[in-house]
Amino acid sequence: MSGATTPAQTTEDDITSEVLQRIQGTPDPRTREIMLSLVTHLHAFVKDVRLTEAEWFEGITFLTDTGQKCNSVRQEFILLSDTLGVSMVVDLIGHRRPAGVTESTVFGPFHRDGAPELANGESMATTDFNGTRAVISGRVLNPSGTPIANALLDVWQANSDGLYDAQLPNHDTLRMRGKYRTDKDGRFVVVTSRPVAYEIPKDGPVGRMLAATNRQAWRPAHVHFVVAADGYEPVTTHLFDAADPRLKAGGDAVFGVKESLVVPFREHVAADTAAAKGAKVNGPFVSVEYDFVLKPVG
Amino acid sequence: MSGATTPAQTTEDDITSEVLQRIQGTPDPRTREIMLSLVTHLHAFVKDVRLTEAEWFEGITFLTDTGQKCNSVRQEFILLSDTLGVSMVVDLIGHRRPAGVTESTVFGPFHRDGAPELANGESMATTDFNGTRAVISGRVLNPSGTPIANALLDVWQANSDGLYDAQLPNHDTLRMRGKYRTDKDGRFVVVTSRPVAYEIPKDGPVGRMLAATNRQAWRPAHVHFVVAADGYEPVTTHLFDAADPRLKAGGDAVFGVKESLVVPFREHVAADTAAAKGAKVNGPFVSVEYDFVLKPVG
Repeated sequence: MSGATTPAQTTEDDITSEVLQRIQGTPDPRTREIMLSLVTHLHAFVKDVRLTEAEWFEGITFLTDTGQKCNSVRQEFILLSDTLGVSMVVDLIGHRRPAGVTESTVFGPFHRDGAPELANGESMATTDFNGTRAVISGRVLNPSGTPIANALLDVWQANSDGLYDAQLPNHDTLRMRGKYRTDKDGRFVVVTSRPVAYEIPKDGPVGRMLAATNRQAWRPAHVHFVVAADGYEPVTTHLFDAADPRLKAGGDAVFGVKESLVVPFREHVAADTAAAKGAKVNGPFVSVEYDFVLKPVG
Repeated sequence: MSGATTPAQTTEDDITSEVLQRIQGTPDPRTREIMLSLVTHLHAFVKDVRLTEAEWFEGITFLTDTGQKCNSVRQEFILLSDTLGVSMVVDLIGHRRPAGVTESTVFGPFHRDGAPELANGESMATTDFNGTRAVISGRVLNPSGTPIANALLDVWQANSDGLYDAQLPNHDTLRMRGKYRTDKDGRFVVVTSRPVAYEIPKDGPVGRMLAATNRQAWRPAHVHFVVAADGYEPVTTHLFDAADPRLKAGGDAVFGVKESLVVPFREHVAADTAAAKGAKVNGPFVSVEYDFVLKPVG
């Protein structure tokens, strides 16, 4: 046998050349660019470590298990991307924001569509009986400091046991989620529970990877936000509780912490009308003041 | 915020450094080596192509779909590895055989345990009514040419419609599979159907990838073998039908062809006792003579 299509494939580099040559026929230039780079790096990895057949099969099993662990309320491949730092690399490549604009961080695997629209001052934590109330208020601004009216804040977080609704029994029910809109002065008032640190799900392939690499699974306490307004780039981000010792003890399992997103949670031992910003909170609570700054489109 | 565990992660390279630093704590040295290389190449790929969030999400969806397509009779991640050339790179790294020893090729996603043990000359294609009979005979030898008695040949292939048993209705039934043992002279006689070229399964994520890269899905006609004997390295390989025009027209979708595995299938228009090697074949059939040469362990 001979001929261009069936060369004497005697080395692994011949295989790499042949794969790259066939991918050259990809019609879409961006798909071609991505596939050529993917195959180049994937083959280089296999060659660098001289991957054995047994290790290859372990990899096949790991990826298969990861896919099979996904369902309507769990996304194990996003969790894998997060824990390998890939999500944050994508985030940082895509969001070079000018100083002063709110920084982004990981989206995570727990966002769900369909959160209820709530009025400012209404609680999204009505099912979380054990949590300390938290009032997170502030404005959405453009980079010049002008308030943006009618901006949408899609907010979600784990409950005070460190579990998202998708991890609870009866997981079809949406909990600890709400959509808030800024008023004419760009103001919002989110009422929720004070977030707690939690471990990401460890009962799947990602947990096996973390155990094999001797890594901890904790995420420091945070609340998730996607803040969007017409004419501005939406920002996917968190606010972290500066008082959480896990910020320093071992870091974030998904590498999501940025200094500008770590904010003080002020503690109030009793009713404090000024801090409550009109929300109905009785007894001890915490408050956060934070202004989100969005970058105009284009 | 400051400190080693929560640096001001302002660039994607900071993330890569932080991930690599955490993986340094992996207790098993080989796992550490593999994980460090994997993260390095994975991050380099994302940075090289400046992967967007939308493209990242497309990748997450692709990998999830690939995992969910796997079941007891289908292994879409092996098919993905095969079609990206990864399986052949692993094969070539792992099997540097001296000249004269039978070369290996892809295992593929269609092997199944539990094939029936058949006597030499017995047919493994009794359910394949439309196929041309094929008698594949020869010896299993050591590199000096000494026959190896009681070697095991685990043989499987697609039927004459180009489908494996796992792709047929009632796919729990094993078909087109057999285990043969060499006699005291190292001889075997496999009776099967002449293999046909077929397209690998295109109804899943791998099919989407092949379509996006404008690649064909054909594999040239072949029979699968795993040949094993005590004291020798087993070989996972194919025999390809040299007469198949698909060997030259577009090549093998999984890059498995090696010159030494392409063999002539002799055509016999009527009964030919010498070529049949004692097997009961009536009318037209094809015959192949091939000696497998195994490398001693160590």
